[in-house]
Amino acid sequence: MPPDDFVRRTTPLRSLGMQRVWSLMISLFGDMTQAEGAGIDGPVLSGIMTGLDVKPEAARVALHRLRNDGWITSRKSGRISRHALSAKGRAETIAASPRIYAPPPGAAQAWQLVLLPESDSAELPAGFTPVTPRVIVGPADAKAPAKALVLQGAEVPGWLREELRPAALEDDYLALLGALEEVMGNLPEGQRLSPMEVATLRCLVVHNWRRLVLKHPALPGALVDRGAAAHRCHLLVHALLARFPRPALRDLSPAATDG
Amino acid sequence: MPPDDFVRRTTPLRSLGMQRVWSLMISLFGDMTQAEGAGIDGPVLSGIMTGLDVKPEAARVALHRLRNDGWITSRKSGRISRHALSAKGRAETIAASPRIYAPPPGAAQAWQLVLLPESDSAELPAGFTPVTPRVIVGPADAKAPAKALVLQGAEVPGWLREELRPAALEDDYLALLGALEEVMGNLPEGQRLSPMEVATLRCLVVHNWRRLVLKHPALPGALVDRGAAAHRCHLLVHALLARFPRPALRDLSPAATDG
Repeated sequence: MPPDDFVRRTTPLRSLGMQRVWSLMISLFGDMTQAEGAGIDGPVLSGIMTGLDVKPEAARVALHRLRNDGWITSRKSGRISRHALSAKGRAETIAASPRIYAPPPGAAQAWQLVLLPESDSAELPAGFTPVTPRVIVGPADAKAPAKALVLQGAEVPGWLREELRPAALEDDYLALLGALEEVMGNLPEGQRLSPMEVATLRCLVVHNWRRLVLKHPALPGALVDRGAAAHRCHLLVHALLARFPRPALRDLSPAATDG
Repeated sequence: MPPDDFVRRTTPLRSLGMQRVWSLMISLFGDMTQAEGAGIDGPVLSGIMTGLDVKPEAARVALHRLRNDGWITSRKSGRISRHALSAKGRAETIAASPRIYAPPPGAAQAWQLVLLPESDSAELPAGFTPVTPRVIVGPADAKAPAKALVLQGAEVPGWLREELRPAALEDDYLALLGALEEVMGNLPEGQRLSPMEVATLRCLVVHNWRRLVLKHPALPGALVDRGAAAHRCHLLVHALLARFPRPALRDLSPAATDG
């Protein structure tokens, strides 16, 4: 696909205020290089960053920062560098992956409601979403505090699903939803993309999705409001990543030559 | 038993601040005359009231008030009056009876936790006890609001039972508990009382018990703190009323002659 055409078709995802270049780079490495020993050659990285409208100087600064912060390691091999996640970077990326790549939950997924003792109400246990003071809900397999009252979920009234929408992120999810729907329409079933384009598209999708989804715990399926922007985004993210599977690193070749 | 001896043995229950005479009279009629057509002859009523340290003038004023308020009806037959609950008085008495006379609940009694929609949180449905904003608990057969989230009770942590004690009434229950224990000791197994003494004793027990127990809904057994004064009172009230069953009205004969 001509570069201009690809950019045009993916523009909605580029207009969401993608924040920092280093964060975008983490999204790319997280999507492409989680496997032990996986890395991205300098020219390929430059090519993808250019495809994401990142200026070479900004990409160099971000890479420098990520190396200083211990997220990325770079190794020279002949004339080109290969960049990879550090052990710490890989560990953090792998920890976040279940939340980012989880398929949309089924409506029957088991859940639990937990009532916390008065003294415990300050701390939110991992995997749980607060409902009202001292009451939290979560998937049936989330670990409730030892002393809590744990009740198995039952039929869920609609108002509870509505109430549990990630309300503070509603506007952001709505913006992402609009972008995902537009890009989905611009890349109809059967549309072919080069491996570099796929890596770039996936980076755009994963980056904008993880910015939101990592800000709140996953609700068990029974408690998910099927009409909420968050859930509709989840469906489209999952569909787009499935339609454009992760390309093999060896199939990526730089359009730009600088590395 | 000599009158002084009976008074001495039941003194602890007489020292609890029994409040108004008309209320004491309601306790007596409620315990003795719930059956359709049942009534208490004036001389018998006077005898019991005297046995409760109520002055004849105070008893007359209370009876007058209860008639005016439509709780009691009085019918002359020859030289003596017979007093009975009015239809309204009977209805209210019968409505309160399950709570007053219920046996102490078993520890395995099924219960439910209900989460109310945000808009409904003001009103407490009948039979439920509030836990925390929007969360109420009650027996499994209590009727939850149509739109609420209803969860079947499970294993109950100790802190929840403690938290659900009727804390505002703790001092009153402790005082009643002390009195009941003392009277229980003063009236050992096998102790015989006259029908008039039994009616008087039951009135003292029911009166002091209902003043407290009608102020809060019954907790399902699984949520009852077995060590709480409220529950220990319940056990003793039940035991005393069982040990001294309601006498037949026809067996009551006045010690006093005024009527």
